[in-house]
Amino acid sequence: MTHPDDVAEALLALRARTPLVHCITNYVTAGFTANVLLAAGASAAMVDNEDEAALFAGVADALLINLGTPQPTLRTSYLSAAKAAQEGTTPWVLDPIGAGGLPWRGAMAQELLAFHPTAIRGNASEIIGLHGLGTGGRGVDSSADPADAVESARGLLARADVVSASGAVDHVVSGEALVRVAGGTPLLTKVTGTGCSLGALMAAYLAVTPSPLTAAVAAHVHVAVAADIAAEQHSAPGSFAVAYLDALYSVTADDLRAGAKLL
Amino acid sequence: MTHPDDVAEALLALRARTPLVHCITNYVTAGFTANVLLAAGASAAMVDNEDEAALFAGVADALLINLGTPQPTLRTSYLSAAKAAQEGTTPWVLDPIGAGGLPWRGAMAQELLAFHPTAIRGNASEIIGLHGLGTGGRGVDSSADPADAVESARGLLARADVVSASGAVDHVVSGEALVRVAGGTPLLTKVTGTGCSLGALMAAYLAVTPSPLTAAVAAHVHVAVAADIAAEQHSAPGSFAVAYLDALYSVTADDLRAGAKLL
Amino acid sequence: MTHPDDVAEALLALRARTPLVHCITNYVTAGFTANVLLAAGASAAMVDNEDEAALFAGVADALLINLGTPQPTLRTSYLSAAKAAQEGTTPWVLDPIGAGGLPWRGAMAQELLAFHPTAIRGNASEIIGLHGLGTGGRGVDSSADPADAVESARGLLARADVVSASGAVDHVVSGEALVRVAGGTPLLTKVTGTGCSLGALMAAYLAVTPSPLTAAVAAHVHVAVAADIAAEQHSAPGSFAVAYLDALYSVTADDLRAGAKLL
Repeated sequence: MTHPDDVAEALLALRARTPLVHCITNYVTAGFTANVLLAAGASAAMVDNEDEAALFAGVADALLINLGTPQPTLRTSYLSAAKAAQEGTTPWVLDPIGAGGLPWRGAMAQELLAFHPTAIRGNASEIIGLHGLGTGGRGVDSSADPADAVESARGLLARADVVSASGAVDHVVSGEALVRVAGGTPLLTKVTGTGCSLGALMAAYLAVTPSPLTAAVAAHVHVAVAADIAAEQHSAPGSFAVAYLDALYSVTADDLRAGAKLL
Repeated sequence: MTHPDDVAEALLALRARTPLVHCITNYVTAGFTANVLLAAGASAAMVDNEDEAALFAGVADALLINLGTPQPTLRTSYLSAAKAAQEGTTPWVLDPIGAGGLPWRGAMAQELLAFHPTAIRGNASEIIGLHGLGTGGRGVDSSADPADAVESARGLLARADVVSASGAVDHVVSGEALVRVAGGTPLLTKVTGTGCSLGALMAAYLAVTPSPLTAAVAAHVHVAVAADIAAEQHSAPGSFAVAYLDALYSVTADDLRAGAKLL
Repeated sequence: MTHPDDVAEALLALRARTPLVHCITNYVTAGFTANVLLAAGASAAMVDNEDEAALFAGVADALLINLGTPQPTLRTSYLSAAKAAQEGTTPWVLDPIGAGGLPWRGAMAQELLAFHPTAIRGNASEIIGLHGLGTGGRGVDSSADPADAVESARGLLARADVVSASGAVDHVVSGEALVRVAGGTPLLTKVTGTGCSLGALMAAYLAVTPSPLTAAVAAHVHVAVAADIAAEQHSAPGSFAVAYLDALYSVTADDLRAGAKLL
């Protein structure tokens, strides 16, 4: 199990090392994702052309592949970067946005699983959908509860070290462990990119934390505690998003230790 | 004519149904557009590759095609999504950014008109330019007044159910009706994406409102009332944009009924 | 040398003429860049497909080419727009992000130098790296001090009228002149796109200022003074970024004259 002390220690490591996260992500939330990484204490570079993706995956401290707005021209970049990360033992995160409901990107996600992502992050429907791709399922119910995704998440552990289903209570599985992270606010769903940037932050934590489970839980706690702080001050999404970035930056290890709601 | 009560009712329908808007839009304002849709009460997904665009247009409640940053690789996506929307009677909005002054995208906009957009939205120059494409005109005067675009907008009614020219006073035409929407603030022109996201919001309203005219007017009123609220609090574009998102989220049906300035 | 009066005059010219900056930039910071240009007093259009890039470079008042997220599909756009700018004596800025450490884009940056950018802007590592491309150097040290880049910047003056290395103290070189601009805050490095948008703002100033050196210095001073104002009010990156846009919009010519820290 993950203890709040582990989370606090992970934040200190993040701030001390400022890991560079190589993001191959979507154009909708790329800017917000970079701002989340910078605010939290990491560094970001979006390098997604096929001529540089593999090279840069070998330079960066961690890699995020997010399938939010895939294009045929990005396919080589996804595969070569994932391959380079696996070969270089660089930790990497797969965020399989929409993979369950859209066959073309679903097939791409399946291909990417062959390079063993360190972590897979998605909402409950995406985790169910990604797992279902291999079993004939569909997983297009976007209102699924993370608790319903635990079985699928466990099924995906053959392909990844840790799998996280985000939601009102996040469910993180690794080996025999299931860690549930409470906290956060529904306002997070009214700001685009909060999920995408969580995946990127998970990559940052994987670069500085030996245990993939601890890294994934730390990213969830960092987000949940910052969102709780922001939601105390603001009740509408514009000002909430600004305060959320501020809180990601300002929270201390003690804040995470005290605010972590691990179930 | 559209009555403020119709606008209030449209907002209630939007909030009750949370329509999913499929956006094939530009990378500059995609994030802001998603945030506007989420704040206003809709849902957003940007799916723009040629392998998924038509499929997703059949799943979503409405479609936006915005020609802000077209690429040759997006041409098939534009056309197949528009075709799927027309065949599935999914409402869709064409935002012909720059179509009047740039021949290549102008030709693409002309092709898209064949799939009969439910609504066309642009600034006055763009509406004049889009209409002029078929008549030999040019329409590159970016300072045109919406009143000057009414004739062009009426001309485009052969290709769309409703046409809107945005500006200091928005002009919305449909059949014999001309509805003018006042309100808003010049600060809207100092924030990128306020026009693009208005087109997306129009698509959201079309999904929940039987009358295209009412839907278009409701989107304009929602934006104008929210901008008025934000401009009362802030006089510079950074803080205005944040307050604008907050107000899109917080305004009630009563606020729209009371604040609608329909001429 | 550049005097604070020159900077103040440049801002007045910017506000009076609202130059249209054609940006071929990256998708991560395109929205923020547009907002910076609008707030500062310019206008922005991102036109980056190969069918329109050269045409639009001939229409706009200035051009920015930023290599943040290059794709093979953008290569023709970069080259044709740069060529059109040179032929039309439209001022243009090259921002060679990452060119020193990534050979593929490095080669593209080298090709672009043939079209003689009016200004080159980068951080110290990028300036060293870009110059090193032609001399066998590498320049991947991202922590380089701008003072260390002055020699490289001078070396690049064979290819550009003015070269700027940004950092804690910005170093701007042109002919025999070296102008150092102090001010600003480390918080600028916690917000994505502050460097990219500085390059765009430099293009805007080049369109309204006869002297490339004055234009480059004015852009740096505008940014530094606005950042100083924002940092007085906020100490975390979310709220800082909002206040920074506000301050770019609100600063007056007198503010720049009084706040310019030219060394």
